[in-house]
Amino acid sequence: MSATATDHPGTSRPRSWWGWGYADNHPDDAECTALGALLPGTLARPLPIPRVADLAIGRPGVTPPPALAHLVSADPRSRAAHAMGKAYRDVIRALRGRPGRIPDLVARPTDDQEVADLLDWAGEHGVAVIPFGGGSSVVGGVEYRGDAHRAVLSLDLTSMDRVMEIDTASRSARIQAGALGPVLEEQLRPHGLTLRHFPQSFEFSTLGGWLATGAGGHYATGRTRIDDFAQSLRVVTPAGAGTSWRLPASGAGPSPDRFFLGSEGALGVITEAWMRLQERPRHKASTSVAFADFGRALDAVRAVAQSDLAPANCRLLDPGEALLSGAAHDGSAVLVLGFESATAPVEDRLAAAVELARDHGGRSGHGASPAADRAAPAGAADAAVHAWRSAFLRMPYLRDGLARMGAVVDTFETATTWDRLPALIDAVRTEVGAAALKATGHPATLNCRLTHVYPDGAAPYFTVAVAGRPGGELAVWDEIKAAATDVLHRHRATVTHHHAVGRDHRPGYDRQRPEPFALALRAAKDALDPHRILNPGVLLD
Amino acid sequence: MSATATDHPGTSRPRSWWGWGYADNHPDDAECTALGALLPGTLARPLPIPRVADLAIGRPGVTPPPALAHLVSADPRSRAAHAMGKAYRDVIRALRGRPGRIPDLVARPTDDQEVADLLDWAGEHGVAVIPFGGGSSVVGGVEYRGDAHRAVLSLDLTSMDRVMEIDTASRSARIQAGALGPVLEEQLRPHGLTLRHFPQSFEFSTLGGWLATGAGGHYATGRTRIDDFAQSLRVVTPAGAGTSWRLPASGAGPSPDRFFLGSEGALGVITEAWMRLQERPRHKASTSVAFADFGRALDAVRAVAQSDLAPANCRLLDPGEALLSGAAHDGSAVLVLGFESATAPVEDRLAAAVELARDHGGRSGHGASPAADRAAPAGAADAAVHAWRSAFLRMPYLRDGLARMGAVVDTFETATTWDRLPALIDAVRTEVGAAALKATGHPATLNCRLTHVYPDGAAPYFTVAVAGRPGGELAVWDEIKAAATDVLHRHRATVTHHHAVGRDHRPGYDRQRPEPFALALRAAKDALDPHRILNPGVLLD
Repeated sequence: MSATATDHPGTSRPRSWWGWGYADNHPDDAECTALGALLPGTLARPLPIPRVADLAIGRPGVTPPPALAHLVSADPRSRAAHAMGKAYRDVIRALRGRPGRIPDLVARPTDDQEVADLLDWAGEHGVAVIPFGGGSSVVGGVEYRGDAHRAVLSLDLTSMDRVMEIDTASRSARIQAGALGPVLEEQLRPHGLTLRHFPQSFEFSTLGGWLATGAGGHYATGRTRIDDFAQSLRVVTPAGAGTSWRLPASGAGPSPDRFFLGSEGALGVITEAWMRLQERPRHKASTSVAFADFGRALDAVRAVAQSDLAPANCRLLDPGEALLSGAAHDGSAVLVLGFESATAPVEDRLAAAVELARDHGGRSGHGASPAADRAAPAGAADAAVHAWRSAFLRMPYLRDGLARMGAVVDTFETATTWDRLPALIDAVRTEVGAAALKATGHPATLNCRLTHVYPDGAAPYFTVAVAGRPGGELAVWDEIKAAATDVLHRHRATVTHHHAVGRDHRPGYDRQRPEPFALALRAAKDALDPHRILNPGVLLD
Repeated sequence: MSATATDHPGTSRPRSWWGWGYADNHPDDAECTALGALLPGTLARPLPIPRVADLAIGRPGVTPPPALAHLVSADPRSRAAHAMGKAYRDVIRALRGRPGRIPDLVARPTDDQEVADLLDWAGEHGVAVIPFGGGSSVVGGVEYRGDAHRAVLSLDLTSMDRVMEIDTASRSARIQAGALGPVLEEQLRPHGLTLRHFPQSFEFSTLGGWLATGAGGHYATGRTRIDDFAQSLRVVTPAGAGTSWRLPASGAGPSPDRFFLGSEGALGVITEAWMRLQERPRHKASTSVAFADFGRALDAVRAVAQSDLAPANCRLLDPGEALLSGAAHDGSAVLVLGFESATAPVEDRLAAAVELARDHGGRSGHGASPAADRAAPAGAADAAVHAWRSAFLRMPYLRDGLARMGAVVDTFETATTWDRLPALIDAVRTEVGAAALKATGHPATLNCRLTHVYPDGAAPYFTVAVAGRPGGELAVWDEIKAAATDVLHRHRATVTHHHAVGRDHRPGYDRQRPEPFALALRAAKDALDPHRILNPGVLLD
């Protein structure tokens, strides 16, 4: 593999080895400087883009056997691109020239047998194996920490990216785990079907990664996570492989699939799955509703979540988030509502949701008066919706631009019940804000949006940005993360709603997980991965 | 406890110790004889109702310590009532005077600590512990088979039946596991809330039993199983107790709750749960649609299941089932459709579903012409719907009446994807029918209904009834069950959609369960139940 070619199939556009997404999509130096000006105390000039050539990449500590050699690469650029995920923590380590441990080898198996052979070899030789999909983890899910293994192998699944079989009657497809979002959607499109799973990382993450991390998807209500769309999984473990039956539902014991969903590569490698698909939506309608009062906006969202309306999109942006994304400029909170259906018009549902929002003080249409709203065509997408969507996809690139200016930017998401939500959001603002100020001497920007909502609660997503201490960005990040973990724990809000545990969320996860389940999980790990080679350090030690 | 009082709190009406439900609701001898006349070859006179006094119930093989003695009963009637569940197999064993092993003791703990103390004592003394809710298992889930334990303790949770806490904002309640359906609904009613979980066993089963078996509930689409309504579980295991956090959703590792949901008392005792509730529905509408062609009816149901309409009830009765329940008398299949909502009228959704059914040859309204249908008030419940509902609740009592006539009656349910469903139903009819004929020399009645439907498949429920060989009913049942298990396995249809595995479904479950998950489950069992006292024989050995 040459140093200039892409590391990822399915696209010929070069990916950044150190930052988010496509290398040619990164903000340039001028844009970085402009971004930095938004945060007092950041650097005057952006940090230079790091180069693989500047990394001290040693020779691999292990040699694969001849039978597997053709699957394995020791190319420095490929190894560097597989050293870490795409968390802020990863980006700043690359920018500061101190990336995580570089894997010794990158393997690209093309079928289950090759995965099994690689696991066998790794088990015999004490080589850690880190399953790797798109590498978009923001929780330290795909790096190696520690030194208990002789070598580290990154197991890149992206050569297994085919839709193998389609059952149109049941609207299901058997898909290999290494398919990136656009790669699998492209194969489904000719059949009029779609998985419709659109995380922010859609272009840069794989089906297997989504399943292994319990990724949050397109739908803000109802079936919000990829888990709900998994019909059957194939898992290859060091102790053997197995496939669950294709079933719409089953009452036969604890769900085998739910045990591997969210297992983050620590119990086995998900190599393919039968996924539940949908017809492409033919009816769509969306709008936004502005609120002067965030508390009332929360009530409105709860009313929508507890109705039968089931919006596909129901994202509440607090005033800061609305301002940042261009959805509102007047200090309003903004609720982005979207409905879609393959079978029936959705304008009535949209209108009913807007009515509920109005009952709680919402003003629909951008800056329009309630009277004018009523005359507006129901379901017309408005400027705030478009602004939000563009900002959503651009956000991770801007984060990297801010990182180049020495800023510390963290995002974290959680979920809690409605009774606890307002106090949780207040406490995060106060305590994480205070921690950021204490760590840096600068006031932090701290925004919140609700990404997914449920009848019994919601998932708030927080973004915190503050000028770092030059060279001390990681320490600042650590302090902010510790404060966030602590406040989530005290409010019994999950350490993660859909970003997964990885290594970064272990302190919170270890305290949150019920002890009987911890015992079961450790016992299962011993049974399935007796040599302890699979993604060491995620979920458990 | 006296021999005449009920064994179950929450009702003063005496329960049958050997058959379904209330003792005073059983068909009398004349009704039994009339039922028997429907099946050629059954007995001329019903078998007598069995009496506890005729059972050889020995002295308990173990004595509880003084500190726990007040929780434990050795009363023969109580022990007999806890010896088995309510499967046909259980009923015929009682009728033939050969019930399963009678437990030595029945314990009724009142809190978690008492459950833990009982588990500690049982573990020290090699006493098997069988968690017992309403005792309505139809899969051998609450009996002891074998002789590896010194004694058997039935752990009856029904003294823990309180709603402990209600969170109206999140529409959730903390409920003790031993609450029978009516007992918990009665406590929720003053708050305007409902769990709305109505299995056929509703009156005779508990929250803990539903959770431990992954019970099928009220909704025919969407959230069909109790699993979807569990927000948090408290589990007491021999290795310690733990409670998962109350969360609307979480991406922190594999779901701890999903590991204990469906664990059937083999991994721990679920002692309480936070459950997701709903407002009581204010809008309801239902109707029935008749089909001359069962295959087209399946297509109609699939179209409804793959739409956004989300009926609460969507049960398709085949012609035999429709005849038996009085829903149709002309050889039609009947689709029972029901919609409900707490927030909005549902007539439009009902009309849209009926329209879809008409597109596939359905005739709505009982015996009415399509022209007349259109004029009929949308959503009016019709006679077929009422007939079906009454028959549904009466069915298990009739089964026991048939058992008294020496008939063999089995019900089994499964789920499979739409592509496989028609062939599966055909194969069950042919092969299970042939097995019943071969075993008895009599033609069997074999009916089918779809109880729950999904975008990717459906759950068919089969009833088979045939005259048994006098005294050989269990052998006939075994042959029919083996044929059913075999055909489900060959068609990759789950061994159970919502009745659970218990002991009766072990042969099918063992073949269906993916081997990596089997390894994990066995390892977890060793870790959580090191003395192997918990419900030995369910799920695993």
